[in-house]
Amino acid sequence: MAGDKIPVAVLGATGSVGQRFVALLAGHPWFELAAVAASERSAGKRYGEAVHWLQAAPPPPGIAGMILGRCVPPPACPLVFSALDAAVAGPIEEDCARAGCLVVSNARNHRMDPAVPLLIPEVNPDHLDLVRGQSFAGGAIITNPNCSTIGLVLSLAPLARAFGLEAVQVVTLQAVSGAGLPGVSSMEMVDNVIPHIAGEEEKIEAESLKVLGVLRDGEVKPAAFRISAQCTRVAVIDGHTQCVSVKLARRATPDELRAAWTDFSGEPQERQLPSAPAKPVHLVDGEASPQPRLHRDLGRGMAASVGRVRACTVLDFKFVTLSHNTVRGAAGGSILAAELAVARGLLPAPVEPPA
Amino acid sequence: MAGDKIPVAVLGATGSVGQRFVALLAGHPWFELAAVAASERSAGKRYGEAVHWLQAAPPPPGIAGMILGRCVPPPACPLVFSALDAAVAGPIEEDCARAGCLVVSNARNHRMDPAVPLLIPEVNPDHLDLVRGQSFAGGAIITNPNCSTIGLVLSLAPLARAFGLEAVQVVTLQAVSGAGLPGVSSMEMVDNVIPHIAGEEEKIEAESLKVLGVLRDGEVKPAAFRISAQCTRVAVIDGHTQCVSVKLARRATPDELRAAWTDFSGEPQERQLPSAPAKPVHLVDGEASPQPRLHRDLGRGMAASVGRVRACTVLDFKFVTLSHNTVRGAAGGSILAAELAVARGLLPAPVEPPA
Amino acid sequence: MAGDKIPVAVLGATGSVGQRFVALLAGHPWFELAAVAASERSAGKRYGEAVHWLQAAPPPPGIAGMILGRCVPPPACPLVFSALDAAVAGPIEEDCARAGCLVVSNARNHRMDPAVPLLIPEVNPDHLDLVRGQSFAGGAIITNPNCSTIGLVLSLAPLARAFGLEAVQVVTLQAVSGAGLPGVSSMEMVDNVIPHIAGEEEKIEAESLKVLGVLRDGEVKPAAFRISAQCTRVAVIDGHTQCVSVKLARRATPDELRAAWTDFSGEPQERQLPSAPAKPVHLVDGEASPQPRLHRDLGRGMAASVGRVRACTVLDFKFVTLSHNTVRGAAGGSILAAELAVARGLLPAPVEPPA
Amino acid sequence: MAGDKIPVAVLGATGSVGQRFVALLAGHPWFELAAVAASERSAGKRYGEAVHWLQAAPPPPGIAGMILGRCVPPPACPLVFSALDAAVAGPIEEDCARAGCLVVSNARNHRMDPAVPLLIPEVNPDHLDLVRGQSFAGGAIITNPNCSTIGLVLSLAPLARAFGLEAVQVVTLQAVSGAGLPGVSSMEMVDNVIPHIAGEEEKIEAESLKVLGVLRDGEVKPAAFRISAQCTRVAVIDGHTQCVSVKLARRATPDELRAAWTDFSGEPQERQLPSAPAKPVHLVDGEASPQPRLHRDLGRGMAASVGRVRACTVLDFKFVTLSHNTVRGAAGGSILAAELAVARGLLPAPVEPPA
Repeated sequence: MAGDKIPVAVLGATGSVGQRFVALLAGHPWFELAAVAASERSAGKRYGEAVHWLQAAPPPPGIAGMILGRCVPPPACPLVFSALDAAVAGPIEEDCARAGCLVVSNARNHRMDPAVPLLIPEVNPDHLDLVRGQSFAGGAIITNPNCSTIGLVLSLAPLARAFGLEAVQVVTLQAVSGAGLPGVSSMEMVDNVIPHIAGEEEKIEAESLKVLGVLRDGEVKPAAFRISAQCTRVAVIDGHTQCVSVKLARRATPDELRAAWTDFSGEPQERQLPSAPAKPVHLVDGEASPQPRLHRDLGRGMAASVGRVRACTVLDFKFVTLSHNTVRGAAGGSILAAELAVARGLLPAPVEPPA
Repeated sequence: MAGDKIPVAVLGATGSVGQRFVALLAGHPWFELAAVAASERSAGKRYGEAVHWLQAAPPPPGIAGMILGRCVPPPACPLVFSALDAAVAGPIEEDCARAGCLVVSNARNHRMDPAVPLLIPEVNPDHLDLVRGQSFAGGAIITNPNCSTIGLVLSLAPLARAFGLEAVQVVTLQAVSGAGLPGVSSMEMVDNVIPHIAGEEEKIEAESLKVLGVLRDGEVKPAAFRISAQCTRVAVIDGHTQCVSVKLARRATPDELRAAWTDFSGEPQERQLPSAPAKPVHLVDGEASPQPRLHRDLGRGMAASVGRVRACTVLDFKFVTLSHNTVRGAAGGSILAAELAVARGLLPAPVEPPA
Repeated sequence: MAGDKIPVAVLGATGSVGQRFVALLAGHPWFELAAVAASERSAGKRYGEAVHWLQAAPPPPGIAGMILGRCVPPPACPLVFSALDAAVAGPIEEDCARAGCLVVSNARNHRMDPAVPLLIPEVNPDHLDLVRGQSFAGGAIITNPNCSTIGLVLSLAPLARAFGLEAVQVVTLQAVSGAGLPGVSSMEMVDNVIPHIAGEEEKIEAESLKVLGVLRDGEVKPAAFRISAQCTRVAVIDGHTQCVSVKLARRATPDELRAAWTDFSGEPQERQLPSAPAKPVHLVDGEASPQPRLHRDLGRGMAASVGRVRACTVLDFKFVTLSHNTVRGAAGGSILAAELAVARGLLPAPVEPPA
Repeated sequence: MAGDKIPVAVLGATGSVGQRFVALLAGHPWFELAAVAASERSAGKRYGEAVHWLQAAPPPPGIAGMILGRCVPPPACPLVFSALDAAVAGPIEEDCARAGCLVVSNARNHRMDPAVPLLIPEVNPDHLDLVRGQSFAGGAIITNPNCSTIGLVLSLAPLARAFGLEAVQVVTLQAVSGAGLPGVSSMEMVDNVIPHIAGEEEKIEAESLKVLGVLRDGEVKPAAFRISAQCTRVAVIDGHTQCVSVKLARRATPDELRAAWTDFSGEPQERQLPSAPAKPVHLVDGEASPQPRLHRDLGRGMAASVGRVRACTVLDFKFVTLSHNTVRGAAGGSILAAELAVARGLLPAPVEPPA
C-alpha cells in the first residue's frame, strides 16, 4: 500500500512552515515523506537534532531519525515541496524542476512569473495549465500565494464570481508563525502591535489580482479591481484575521453575499482531494466571530471563516475573514495544490494517480 | 497656592478610566482632587480598599484614605469629571449640572446631544459655545469622544483643514484597558483577536463627524465625509492602533500630508494649557511605527502618533495612527477639555482662571 | 447501541470546565449527555444562546439546541457531573446524591469530607470504597482534586510508590482557563504575572496528602510528607506548569526516577477505561520541556509530562511537570473517575458495566 | 558643568541592555555618554541606524547621530560600561582594563574571578576592595551579578544579616527583555512558558553565594547556605518575579522579617548616590503583590519588591520578590556600582569625585 505512495521531499523542513509540511504529510494517503533537506549548516544532522519543534502536536514517529540532506534535487522524489526562505529558494527550485521534479513552492520567488501558476485550488485550478509554458525538461514549478493572500482570496472569490469586484480594502492582523523562526522577537510582540510586515502589502495586492485573473491564450490576465492592503502583526500564534471592505460590480444584499460564501465550492471538493475541506468557506455566526483561537482549525485548518457581514458606507460591504496561515496559508495549501496537480495528471513522474 | 486650586470630584473613580483621572490629577496645577465617588456598593469605603489598582505607577499619596462618596452632586466641587459607566451616567451627570457643576464626561450618554459639546480641544474648541444652549441652571455638561475617535480625529483634523476629507476607512486594533474592569477576559485575549467591540464602530462614525463639524447659529453641522470603521480588540494594555485610508477633497502629496501633521497645533498649545502636549501629533519615522509599546507615551500620553504614510490605490492615502486610550483617549482628554473650559471662562463657579 | 449508554447530566455546563465536559462527552462510548443545567439566570435558555463558547473546537452538533435546566437532581440521569461554582455546589450535589445519582464533582466543597473519595484513578482507585460510608440513599458523591493538585500528584505518585516522599516544594505557573469565566481580566494578564490564586496553595497542600494517603478501616490516613506550594497565574490559555523539588525517603538515582515515571501505570490503563491515556506520565526530552503549548495535549490532554530531572541542593531532586488543567485537571479527570466507578460497579443505577 | 562629568563609553550599546544604559545615562549628574561601541558589523554606522530601539521612552536626543565605534579601549573614557555578549566580553573587557579604564561589566565572564568584585552596592560594597588584587595597570574590572541574582539577593540580604540563612529555594518567572535581542521568539512565548534558561540556575546559585560572602584577607569566602534555583521564562516584557522559600539560622516571626526588609538600607543610600533608590526593598501590601506590571518601576526600577510573606512547611518562610531586570538587574545596577566606585575613590582616572 505504502509502495503506491509518491515519494516526496520537503526542502526547508526545519522552519515553521517546514514543520507543518512534516506534520501534515504524516499519514497522507497519496504522498510519503522520503527526504528532508535544510541549510548547509543543518545538512547531515538528524532531523530531531536540528529542528526546534514548535507545533502543538509532537513530531510524527520516524521523522526524528531522518537525516537532513542538502537542498539539491532529491534523487527519487518526483514531488518536491519547498518551504525555503526566499533568499535561497529561487535557483534551488529551478534546479529541482530541471531535474524533472514537480516543485510546489511556498516561497515568493516564482509566484509572479508569467509561466508559473499561483494556485488556490478552489479558485483558479485551470491556471495549472500555465506549466505547459515552462521550459524545464519534464519538471515544473507551481506556487501557492502568500499566507494572507490565500485567506483573503478564499473570501473574495465567491464574491468575484457572483457579483464582480471593483475595489477591495483590507487590513490584516497576522499571526507570528507567519514570520517563521526565530521570526518576531517576543520583546516586540508582548503588549504590542507591529503595524508593518516587509513586502506583505505588495504581495497581497499583486497576488490577489493574479489568482483571480483569467487564463486566456496561455497567459493569466490579472483581475482589474483596485486593491489596497495594510498589514499588522499581533500576538497570536496561528491564524490571520483580516478586516475587509469591498465594492461590488453588481448590487447585492447581505443575504446574497452569505449565500455566495455558503455555496462556494470548487474542484478540490468535487474531486474529493485528500486535503480538501468539505467547505472552503465557513460563514460563522456570532457578533464577535471569527476569532483565531476559535476558528482557525475549522476544516482541519484548511477552511477560511467569514463573519460580521454588514454594509460599508465607503465601499459596499465589510466583513472579517480568518484562516490558518501555516496550514491553508502555507503547507496545507501547497499539499492541496500538489493533490490537484496529481489528480489532473500533471505530475511529471509516471505515477498512477490514486483513485 | 493650593488654596487657589479648583476642587474637583471624580465620579466612577475606581474603574480603569477613574484610576487614570486620579493619577493624572495628582499634582495638577489648577485642579485639586477633593472628592471621589463610586457605585453604591463601594460608597463609604476607603478608596484604597475599594479599588483594584492596575496602573503601572502606584496610587498618589493620600488617595488611599479618601472615603468614596455616592454619585450625587458633590457639595463644594464646581468641576466634576465623570468616568461613570454609560448604564448610569446620564441622569447623574444631569443632576450634577443642575446643581451648578461643570461636568466633563467621558461617558457616551450625552455626546450626541445637540447642545452638548463633543470636544477635542485642538480640533473644535469653539464648540464649547454650545453650552449656552443648555438649560441647566448655572451648570453644564461637556463631553469628550470615545477613546478611538479621539486618536482618529487628531490624525484626521490636520488633513480636513488642509485638504478636505471625502472618505475615511479605519480599522482599529484596540487595547484592553479601553474595556474597563473586569472588561475582557484573559481567556478571550491570550493567543487571540476579538474582531468586534460593541457599539464602537457606530461611535467612531457618528462622533468623528460631529467633532469635525462646523458650529453655526448655535448648532453643530456635522462634517459630510463618508466614514466606515471596523473595530478589533488585541492583547495590548494601553494604546489604540488604527489603520486609516483617506480620500481627500484636494490633491496632495505625501510631503504635504506630513507637513499638515507636523504643523498641526491648536488652542491648547497657544494657551499652554497644563495638559496640552507640545505637539498634538507626532510624525514618527521608521517603517514599523507607530507601535503601542513604543509610542503611546509620547507627549505624556497626550499626543497621537502618525506613521507609514503612503499612497492608497482605493482611496488616496493610507497611514497608521496611535494614541493612548486612557490618557488622551479618556481621562487626559477630559482634563484638557476642562482646562480649556476654565481658560475660556466657562466654569460656572466664580474662579479666577489661572494665568 | 446508543440505547446502552448511561444518560448523564452536566451541572454548570456553560462555564469553562462545563464546556470541556460537553466537548469531552461528545461521542463518549459509555456516557450520553442527556441534560445540561446552569444558573437560574440561564435556565430555560438554549445552550447555544447562554454559553460564551471559548474552546478551540466548535461545540458538538446538537448541543446548541439543548435547553438548560435548573440545577436540581435530573430525573433520568444516574450519573451527574458537577462543574458548579463552589459557592453553590455543596447542597446541590448532596440533593443529587440523595436523589440516587452518582455525583462526580469537580468542585472543592466535598473534597476533604472523610467519606468522600478524592480520586485520581491511576493513584488511589481503592479510595472509591469510601462511598460505602456515605449516607445518601443509593446515591454517592465522588470528587477529583483541584486542577494543579492532579498534575502534581500524577508526577509524585510514582516517586511515592518507589522511593517514599519526605518533602515537596512546588511553584505553579497556572493557565487562565483554570479561573473560569470571566476569570482573570486581560488587564491583569497582559505583560504580567499574578503571584497568587485564592485558596490554591492550601488546596494543593491538603489534597495531595489525602490522595496519596492510605485507606485503612474505612478511613483515609493522609500521607505524612511535608508539602509547601506557591501558586502564580501566567498568560497561558491551558496547561499548568509546576516546578517541583522533592526529598525522598530512600536514595535514588535520576535514572531510577525516570524509570519510575516511565513505568507508571494504574487501574485505568489495566481496565483500558475509555478516557485513560496509554501512559499517565510522559517523560519528555529536551532541555526546555515540558511546555504548555507543546505538551498539554499529550494523551489527548489526559497525560502529565515530566522533564528537566536533576539534583536539588536543598532537597534531593527537582523537575518540571505539566498537565492540561481543564482536561486531566478537571472535566477529563472527572470523566475518568466516573469510568472507574462504572467499571468497579459503583454506579447506583442498575447499569451493565460495558465490556 | 558638563565639563566636570566623567566621560563614559558603553560597549554593546545597541542590545537590550545597551539601550537601557543609553537611556539611563541621559542626564546623569556624574557621567556623560561619550562613546558607544558595538559589533564589527555595526561599527561605523550611526547609532540611530544600527539600533532596533525597543524601549518605551524614545532614545535621548543626540544619541541617534553618534557613530558606533569598535569594541576597543575608548581613548578618553576612564569609565567603560560593558553590555557585551558573553561570547566576546572577556578579552575586550581585559583590554580596556589594561588600557587604564575602570570597566563595569554586566557580562558573566569575570563575575566569578576571585579578584573581581561581584557587586550589589547595598549588599557588599566592601568587596570593591578586591580590585587591589587585580593586575591591570591602573585599570580594573568590576561586575554586577545576573539579573535574577540581583533581585533575589536584594531580598535575601536583609534576612542574611538579621537571621542568617541556611537554605534557599527559588523559582523564577523571568521577563523576555532579559534574553536580549532577538532573544526569545514570539512563537515560543505566546500562550506558553519556557521552563529553562541556559546557565541561569547555575549563575543564581554561584553568584548569590559570592555576593553574600565575606571579604577576608583579600578574598571572598562564599556564603555557606544551600541554594537551589529553577528558572522559567514568561510572557512579560520587564520584571523578574521570584518565588522564594528560606530556612533561617535563627527563629524569626513574619513581623521580624518584614522589619528586616523595611529597615534595609546600605552605602548607596547613606552616600545618596545618584541612582540609589530611597529604599532598596519595598514591602508591598496586597494578597497578589508584587506583580511585574505594577511594581517593576518602584524606585525608578532600582528597588526590589517583596510580598506574600508567610510560613513554609518545608523550610521556614516563603515570599515573592520582584525586580526590574534591565534596570536594577543590569544597566541600572552597573551604573550604581560605578557610582559607588567613584564615591570610594576607585576610579583610575584622576577625576574629582563629585560632592
